Amino acid sequence: MKNYALAVIPGDGIGVDVTDAAMKVLNTVASRFGFGLSPQTFPWSCEYYHETGAMMPEDGIETLRGFDAILLGAVGWPKTVPDSVSLHGLLLPIRKAFNQYANIRPHRLLDRVEGPLKASAFDILCIRENTEGEYSGAGGRVHQGKSNEVAIETTIFTREGVERILRFGFEQARKRRKHLTSVTKSNAQKHAMVFWDDVTRELAAEYDDVTVSQMHIDAMAAKMVMAPEQLDVVVASNLFGDILTDLGAAIQGGLGFAASANINPDRSSPSMFEPVHGSAPDIAGQNIANPIAAIWSAAMMLDHLGEAEAAKAVLAAIEDATRQGVGIRPGSHTTDEITAKILGVLEN
Amino acid sequence: MKNYALAVIPGDGIGVDVTDAAMKVLNTVASRFGFGLSPQTFPWSCEYYHETGAMMPEDGIETLRGFDAILLGAVGWPKTVPDSVSLHGLLLPIRKAFNQYANIRPHRLLDRVEGPLKASAFDILCIRENTEGEYSGAGGRVHQGKSNEVAIETTIFTREGVERILRFGFEQARKRRKHLTSVTKSNAQKHAMVFWDDVTRELAAEYDDVTVSQMHIDAMAAKMVMAPEQLDVVVASNLFGDILTDLGAAIQGGLGFAASANINPDRSSPSMFEPVHGSAPDIAGQNIANPIAAIWSAAMMLDHLGEAEAAKAVLAAIEDATRQGVGIRPGSHTTDEITAKILGVLEN
Ligand SMILES: CC(C)[C@H](C(=O)O)[C@@H](O)C(=O)O
Ligand SMILES: CC(C)[C@H](C(=O)O)[C@@H](O)C(=O)O
Repeated sequence: MKNYALAVIPGDGIGVDVTDAAMKVLNTVASRFGFGLSPQTFPWSCEYYHETGAMMPEDGIETLRGFDAILLGAVGWPKTVPDSVSLHGLLLPIRKAFNQYANIRPHRLLDRVEGPLKASAFDILCIRENTEGEYSGAGGRVHQGKSNEVAIETTIFTREGVERILRFGFEQARKRRKHLTSVTKSNAQKHAMVFWDDVTRELAAEYDDVTVSQMHIDAMAAKMVMAPEQLDVVVASNLFGDILTDLGAAIQGGLGFAASANINPDRSSPSMFEPVHGSAPDIAGQNIANPIAAIWSAAMMLDHLGEAEAAKAVLAAIEDATRQGVGIRPGSHTTDEITAKILGVLEN
Repeated sequence: MKNYALAVIPGDGIGVDVTDAAMKVLNTVASRFGFGLSPQTFPWSCEYYHETGAMMPEDGIETLRGFDAILLGAVGWPKTVPDSVSLHGLLLPIRKAFNQYANIRPHRLLDRVEGPLKASAFDILCIRENTEGEYSGAGGRVHQGKSNEVAIETTIFTREGVERILRFGFEQARKRRKHLTSVTKSNAQKHAMVFWDDVTRELAAEYDDVTVSQMHIDAMAAKMVMAPEQLDVVVASNLFGDILTDLGAAIQGGLGFAASANINPDRSSPSMFEPVHGSAPDIAGQNIANPIAAIWSAAMMLDHLGEAEAAKAVLAAIEDATRQGVGIRPGSHTTDEITAKILGVLEN
């Protein structure tokens, strides 16, 4: 029997609630499909920060390296730890250290879920660069607090970084409707974004079975809302991917439905699976967070681990649940009710 | 009789079509409200670039400085001139040179216009920083074309730049529903965006009659779509403002409705008025572009020049036109028909 070592980091707020739900689903599906799971939970979070002065131990990355995959809930408790500290102390270093350069985020409306748009037929796969670009962390502040203060933040693209994410995007497009939209802002950012456009054009010649559109982020944001059905695979930088996938989450009915996989495609280190949503302190621990995004992310993990049948079963169970009206509107069901419904479908 | 010297730059593509419409409206309203207009048209555009090798003459900025206001159509013809060249050669230098640091963009649904959202009751005023930030132009590329190529683009915020746009935002909020949302991405960009957040907090203490929310751009993009009615005045950096206002345009029914004013609040140099949309080469010169965004921008110009009554009349005429079903759907009416309707209302 195959057995997978899972590092589980529930993190903060509703991260704990939804990770709990996802683990229940994983355990159920493991026994049904005949594989083993050895989860180990790490309490790394803002609470951990208060106790230890760091979001994770110094050897945190080395500890995680031994696992087959990482399941993460959400990170952040801005009332007591600035987001810039908590995220740069846990989530962002994991993405970078393990070269999880492809952040995959699917956006489509599940049955009966009510989105904010009149349009409902769309099926978008966002591929977000996950290790560099606008999230490089390079920058600083001078003359702090003075009238001549200046703050800078530098976007850094490397050819390797841009090429590999674009190739990943082209490959995904080949598996779907063969249409790739590459998103930049090269009319305003004439160095980094023109570079990305150049690499896109170079690669497009190699993937001549894929149709490529190059769009600016502003026009793309408008298109997500006005004509999402025209989009297939979308590839974007770290920041633009971040923005477009929250928008994608919105049009698919809310952050409670948006799943994501932080993938290291060469498998030299573990990949990480997490819902797109944050820790939502205002609803934490109240048994009202929608666990679907976390459960869907767990399905993406199963798929990545090679358990494609189990992954499909979980996704089918989620779809069955919403088809039966469970979890389709904020507040319509508790976290436990939605989880129980999905478990029930899986057990039959 | 008051007389205003107008610099008119139709630019490229549908910029020409809609500027023509806006000028007709301006001439009509001038004679009705008893002020004079002395327009001078400048052919600066991508065509001009082909003829002269530059988007505008070397003394272009100095030439414009003498005018009371600038009316601009749209800039760009990417098939023959890269956007990074055309925009950095005309639109962006004007915004910077004249310290038009406040880019004001209103978003609301006009009567009977069909937007993509189920929700229709929103009235958002976006205030976009217009001179620095992600549009600083600082950056470069090394090892071009080689495997170790690196491209960088640096966001630069100055205290003066950030303070003045935030103050402008607070002042606008005071004139409206007293709610300001400041948009950053300080959880990922810990230098520049944390600085913006710090300045926001400092100023919030001074404007204690205004409620302030600080949101990350990703959550904000989702909110524009999920709960736009909760937003009043939104203030954002150059790039984030760009993205949010295209999204705003989308939810108000499309780019054909989104107006904008590039304002120099201290009036030491001319302000510029332009629709949010681009040159749309695919529909240029076909008499199908919606002129409402350009005409609405012209109304914002009248307001800025002190002709508040005339501005109100133009806006009322636009609203009358859509209330009568004119211009409410793409393709429902020609550019000329929409313009004629608005002129007809103004003449009665
Ligand atoms: C929490 C934040 C740093 C993170 C990001 O911007 O990457 C989140 O918004 C996401 O999309 O995963
Ligand atoms: C054309 C482009 C450079 C411009 C911008 O990004 O500022 C436009 O999108 C706008 O919003 O006015």
